[in-house]
Amino acid sequence: MNNEVYLDNNATTCVDEKVLEAMMPYFKQNYANPSSMYDSAKVSAKAIEIAREQVQNLLGAEDKKSIIFTSCATESANTAIRGVVEKYGNSENNHIITTQVEHPCVLNVYHYLEKKGYSATYVGVDENGDLDIENLLSKITPKTILLSVMHANNETGAVYPVLDIAKEAKKINKNIKVFVDGVQAAGKIPINLKDSDIDFYSISGHKFHAPKGVGAMYYKKGNLFEPLLIGGHQENSLRAGTQNTPYIVGLGSAAQLALENLDFENDRVKKLRDKLEDGILSRLKNAKLNSKSKTRVPNTTNIGFEYIEGELILLYLNDLKIYASSGSACTSGSLDPSHVLRAQKVPFTSLHGSIRFSLSRFTKEDEIDFAIEKTDEVIRKLAKISPFQNELRALGL
Amino acid sequence: MNNEVYLDNNATTCVDEKVLEAMMPYFKQNYANPSSMYDSAKVSAKAIEIAREQVQNLLGAEDKKSIIFTSCATESANTAIRGVVEKYGNSENNHIITTQVEHPCVLNVYHYLEKKGYSATYVGVDENGDLDIENLLSKITPKTILLSVMHANNETGAVYPVLDIAKEAKKINKNIKVFVDGVQAAGKIPINLKDSDIDFYSISGHKFHAPKGVGAMYYKKGNLFEPLLIGGHQENSLRAGTQNTPYIVGLGSAAQLALENLDFENDRVKKLRDKLEDGILSRLKNAKLNSKSKTRVPNTTNIGFEYIEGELILLYLNDLKIYASSGSACTSGSLDPSHVLRAQKVPFTSLHGSIRFSLSRFTKEDEIDFAIEKTDEVIRKLAKISPFQNELRALGL
Repeated sequence: MNNEVYLDNNATTCVDEKVLEAMMPYFKQNYANPSSMYDSAKVSAKAIEIAREQVQNLLGAEDKKSIIFTSCATESANTAIRGVVEKYGNSENNHIITTQVEHPCVLNVYHYLEKKGYSATYVGVDENGDLDIENLLSKITPKTILLSVMHANNETGAVYPVLDIAKEAKKINKNIKVFVDGVQAAGKIPINLKDSDIDFYSISGHKFHAPKGVGAMYYKKGNLFEPLLIGGHQENSLRAGTQNTPYIVGLGSAAQLALENLDFENDRVKKLRDKLEDGILSRLKNAKLNSKSKTRVPNTTNIGFEYIEGELILLYLNDLKIYASSGSACTSGSLDPSHVLRAQKVPFTSLHGSIRFSLSRFTKEDEIDFAIEKTDEVIRKLAKISPFQNELRALGL
Repeated sequence: MNNEVYLDNNATTCVDEKVLEAMMPYFKQNYANPSSMYDSAKVSAKAIEIAREQVQNLLGAEDKKSIIFTSCATESANTAIRGVVEKYGNSENNHIITTQVEHPCVLNVYHYLEKKGYSATYVGVDENGDLDIENLLSKITPKTILLSVMHANNETGAVYPVLDIAKEAKKINKNIKVFVDGVQAAGKIPINLKDSDIDFYSISGHKFHAPKGVGAMYYKKGNLFEPLLIGGHQENSLRAGTQNTPYIVGLGSAAQLALENLDFENDRVKKLRDKLEDGILSRLKNAKLNSKSKTRVPNTTNIGFEYIEGELILLYLNDLKIYASSGSACTSGSLDPSHVLRAQKVPFTSLHGSIRFSLSRFTKEDEIDFAIEKTDEVIRKLAKISPFQNELRALGL
């Protein structure tokens, strides 16, 4: 077992040794600017095109030209959403739709656009964390220009049927553009954008063992959008800025490894996740599963511990070098309970004690055994100092 | 001597071994998301704050909080320019000024803003590549909200007196915001933003031996601007997106090394540049110096070879593994002659044969000797097949 038990892979992952090896030649040896014209630059430019194909394969995209490299999924989401709105929005067509459970890089862009005069609809989820598709589709009007739905939720792991949603949405309004935040899906479940109605799709390298600071955006041919980063002609003039050869190569390598490990994720990683989840739920009567969607990614579980304060649980786990989280790292530091769990109406009694555990293909079984045992101990210890003694005693704690 | 003679350091640089060493622990060991709350994340968060101080020192900034990390200088420039315009621009205050010799990441944002209804003034340079400051200042009106002037030109190395320009500009209109693209100045000349009137300043790591894909933006306290990347609360809520710990650490390390090597740049690198320049100009009568500004960075020279085609020169040099360029890598591939050299009215006869050589602290003297000798040979060879035989013969070629 490692010294640290890292169970926060939805926040970020370690870089795979093979990914790092693939990147290394592009720092000091083949470092030329891929936009330059001489021979050494062509080595970099070629490496980038190989990576583009690797990402194309992970996403099941029709063409490597559909892939644009960015600096992160936040940039990808901003590019897609703001790019669509700037291109297609006007005083007549000014309605945009998303869900209440999106990542801040979508939700906060929507809030920003509302301030700019756009009308935004945020559809909720049921108590399992699932979307009511009929309700979502009913919000589409002739004025709707954009629908954003994440593929998999970062906090609960719930998977949304984005292919169907896109297809049905276009039946109602063929001009609508569909953006899918695929950050938590990539490397965890199969993606096949080729024959889909999805117009834009974003991924982040550091969620599947590439480094932080590189992402990609897929766009379906014919979808014009206003670029977010304006300058040089890189990335087919759709994303200016010198291309980050090492990280792009790393993203490509990580994409290929993710694709190769999809079965492993859905078999071995899923088994470990289920062991962790079952282990905790069977030992602790105050543990309630928040990840209740029937369709979910194989690596994530979110469990609410009734009558216990989540930040305290994390602090105690931290002291044992078990790392988990109470929500997105992008919202951490905030004392507000998770907007995702609030949207699925997790009861107050367990909302504040909700913990996300997220595994990776590097998670070991003895780490899971240790996490089960120690979580059990921590919760029992904290139960002793909880102000809700009667309730906890009734649950055998 | 290395196998390759890389004289295109204004396009990009190799990563310094020490920078790479500083970065390495943050890929596989200290990989936690710096926004997470547990102990291992605090290691990353702390490393980022050290890097922020290192960049603060390079820029002579008053506060490390003035430094925001970005994915590149293009993002920094877009953030500053669009952020200012969005915050302070309106139908009344809609005038923006820049120079004709800026990098595309400034010029193309200005063109974009013109399409959005802003009125833009582009001031020219004289035949030495210098700005006429009086003329520039005369363009400022009460409606002017933004003035963008680069610190050093990427193609000629000309240095502009940005501290004075900012000071004088504010005397005319105290509300004006001044953005300085410092990409080609950082690591080459001293920068001292502390007591300046510069409001925003951008740098790019890969121009001074950090990797491609990381940059920074300085902003003076009190300068509110609308963030470009919206999402999580990273970088004091001014730049969303998971922080790229390894590259930020690398940028900090590179900033410290750049500061330590400033004297070396202005002594040893300058001597090599002068040797290259003098060697070429003294051997070839058709060679005309384009880098004629009295104030220029120590590593850059730009030389026009009359009656010879620049792309051919580069091709022949490339075959000898000598790498130089005819302009910015961000505009390469375009057949239009350099907008910078056109602005300083370089005559047609040498405009198309203009080559930029840019050195770094890793450039060796024998490489410079080789470059002088081989450039001489290449030009003489190409003179034999030039359609301007009479003119070249008159120049002894």
